[in-house]
Amino acid sequence: MSKIHNFSAGPAILPQVAIDNSIEALKDFAETGLSLITVSHRAKEFVAVMDQAVANAKELFGIGDDYDVIFIQGGASTQFCMVPFNLLPINGKAAYLNTGTWATNAIKEAEKLGNVEVVASSEESNFNFIPKNYSIPNDAAYFHITTNNTIYGTELHEDLDVNVPLIADMSSDIYSRPVDVSKYDLIYAGAQKNIGPAGTTMVIVKKGILGKTGRNIPTMLNYETHIKKESMFNTPPVFPIFVVNETFKWLKSIGGVEEIYKLNKAKAQLLYNEIDNNPLFKGTAAVEDRSIMNVTFVLKNDSLDADFLDYCKNANISGIKGHRSVGGFRASLYNALPIESVQALVDVMQAFSQKFG
Amino acid sequence: MSKIHNFSAGPAILPQVAIDNSIEALKDFAETGLSLITVSHRAKEFVAVMDQAVANAKELFGIGDDYDVIFIQGGASTQFCMVPFNLLPINGKAAYLNTGTWATNAIKEAEKLGNVEVVASSEESNFNFIPKNYSIPNDAAYFHITTNNTIYGTELHEDLDVNVPLIADMSSDIYSRPVDVSKYDLIYAGAQKNIGPAGTTMVIVKKGILGKTGRNIPTMLNYETHIKKESMFNTPPVFPIFVVNETFKWLKSIGGVEEIYKLNKAKAQLLYNEIDNNPLFKGTAAVEDRSIMNVTFVLKNDSLDADFLDYCKNANISGIKGHRSVGGFRASLYNALPIESVQALVDVMQAFSQKFG
Repeated sequence: MSKIHNFSAGPAILPQVAIDNSIEALKDFAETGLSLITVSHRAKEFVAVMDQAVANAKELFGIGDDYDVIFIQGGASTQFCMVPFNLLPINGKAAYLNTGTWATNAIKEAEKLGNVEVVASSEESNFNFIPKNYSIPNDAAYFHITTNNTIYGTELHEDLDVNVPLIADMSSDIYSRPVDVSKYDLIYAGAQKNIGPAGTTMVIVKKGILGKTGRNIPTMLNYETHIKKESMFNTPPVFPIFVVNETFKWLKSIGGVEEIYKLNKAKAQLLYNEIDNNPLFKGTAAVEDRSIMNVTFVLKNDSLDADFLDYCKNANISGIKGHRSVGGFRASLYNALPIESVQALVDVMQAFSQKFG
Repeated sequence: MSKIHNFSAGPAILPQVAIDNSIEALKDFAETGLSLITVSHRAKEFVAVMDQAVANAKELFGIGDDYDVIFIQGGASTQFCMVPFNLLPINGKAAYLNTGTWATNAIKEAEKLGNVEVVASSEESNFNFIPKNYSIPNDAAYFHITTNNTIYGTELHEDLDVNVPLIADMSSDIYSRPVDVSKYDLIYAGAQKNIGPAGTTMVIVKKGILGKTGRNIPTMLNYETHIKKESMFNTPPVFPIFVVNETFKWLKSIGGVEEIYKLNKAKAQLLYNEIDNNPLFKGTAAVEDRSIMNVTFVLKNDSLDADFLDYCKNANISGIKGHRSVGGFRASLYNALPIESVQALVDVMQAFSQKFG
C-alpha cells in the first residue's frame, strides 16, 4: 500500500515506532505474557510506564520538582471546567483571552462558576489573529490563554509575561517548541495531537496553587485527587498513556523539543512559502500569528475546492479539508509529520496551479 | 510462552479475537492505510465503529429506542458525581444502598451535592452480604445500587423492583447475565472488566429523565451534552471504544448474554465447589450473595498465603491476590475467562491441599 500523508488535525499522525511498540505491547506487555490492555494498572510493569511518562514529560520541558504532572481523562473540554473549579475562588474573577472556538468554550465553562472578564477577542475577524494589546485586571485569579488555535491556524509564538497567574491550553502545540514552564501556573493538553492517541489529557500543575477557592469540588474534578494518587486514583486509560510514553521516547530520541522546533519551523515555512507564492492560494491567518502546527489556507476561487481535494486524494494526502466551521483547507503539521509529507503537499499545489492557474 | 490464566480484577482478560483485531486496526484501520489511532474521530470509518458499538450495546441487552447509549470518559468514579448532577434536584433527596467501597464513594459524591439517605449498609460486616430488607423513601429522586462488588465478591443476582427510579453501577458485571434494562433509569459501567480496556465508560440513559434538577451542570458532566452529539461532543477515546465494539462482536458471536450467563455460572460453580469442599479454604461472601464475577476466598491458615501464591505463579495463574484493602484471594471470572482457567485454579487448590492439608 502507498504511504498516506496524514495531515489530520487530531487524532493525528504519531511516530511509527510508537505505534509499532504499542502493537508489540498488545501482543505481550513487558514480558508479562499478557496483553497491555489485560494487565492490572497496578502491576509493577504498568506503574513503571506511568512513572516513565511523567519523568519524560518533565524532562522534555525541563520541568522541576515545583510542578506536578498528571495524566487524566476527559479531554481539554473537561479542563475547561476543572480550571475554574480549582483556581477561581468563589466571588473571584478570572481573565480569558478569546482566540477561537476552544477558548470560547473555556470561557463559557468558567462563566458557569464565576465572574469572567474577556480581556480581548478576535472573534469579529473570525479569529484570524491573536490580540496583543490588552490589560489584565490585577485582581484576576488567573489569565487563561489558548496557545494554538487548531481551527483558525493562529498561534502564540512565545511565553507571555503577565501580571497574574498564567493558565494555558496547549492541546495542539505542546512539545512543538521549547516552553518556559516556570511562567505558567498550569498547562493542559489533550493528548491527541502531539503526544499520543485520544483518551488521556496531560496537566502540569505548579505546586502550592490548589485548595484555595473555597469550592466543594467533585472528587474527580479536583486536581489534588489525581496528584495525590499519582494519576491512579481510579483506573487510568492504560493504552493511551502507554502510547504517550512511547511518543515521548521518540521525541527524546530525535533530540527533544529544540530539534523538533527546528523541524516544525522548516515544515511550516515550506508550506507558507508555497501558499504565499502560488497565485491560486492564500493564507487565512495574520502573517505574524501563523501557526506552525495548523496551516489554514483557501483557494482564491473556491469553486476549485473539490478539484483540489481530488488532487490531494490522488497524491495520498489525507485530512486536508478545513474544519467544518471555517471551510477551506488545513494542513496540520504536528511533530510526527515528516517534512517529506509537506513537500508532497507543496508538489500537489504546484501541479494544481499549473493545471488551473 | 505458556498461556497465562488471567484472573485480574480489572483491567482484565479480554477475548483474544478483540485484541487481534485491535492489532490489525493499529496497522491499517478499515483499509484507510492509516493506524486506528491516527485517523480523525470524524472519519466515516470511525463514526461507523461508534455507531456499531452503540447498536451492539443495545442489541446485547435488548434495549429499545426509549434509551440512549453513550461512551464517555472518566470511569465510574466520574459517574459518581454525574448521577447526582443530572438526577438529584436541588433540595431533593437520593437513596443509596451501601454494599462496598465503590458504593461508599458514590455516596460521598452525592452528599457533596445534596441530601442522601443510605437505606441499608453491610459495612459493619465488611460488606460480606447484600442488605435485603430496607425501605426506600417515596420522595427519593432515585435509588442507587452497585450490582456487583468487585472487592468483596458479592452480587445482586436479579433486577430489583423498587418504588423510585433505579440507577445501577454495573461496572463489574455488565453483560455477564441478561438484564431487564426497562427496570432501570440509568446504568453505567467502566469498560475495563467485561466490555473492553480502561479508558471509556458506557452509560445507558432512559429518555426523558434529564434536565429536571435545576442545576447548572458543567457541560462535560451533563449527559445531554454527550447524547445530543452521539458521544462525539469532544474527541472520544478512539482505541478503547474500538476494542469495546470488538468485545461486543465476540460476545454476540458466542451467543450473547444468555449463553455467557450459562458459562459464567458454570465457572463460578466450579470454583465455589472447590472452595467449599477443600478443607484449607473458605469463601468470604454470604453464600446467597456470592458473585459470579469476583470469587473472594481465604486460606483458613493465612500463614500459608505466600505458599499458595507461589503455587499459583508456578501454574501461570495471574491476578489472584485479594484487593489490598481486604487481603486473601480473589479470582475474577469475567466473560472472557475460559472455564479451562478456572479448572487450572481448582487443580492448583487441590494440589496445594494435598501438600499442606
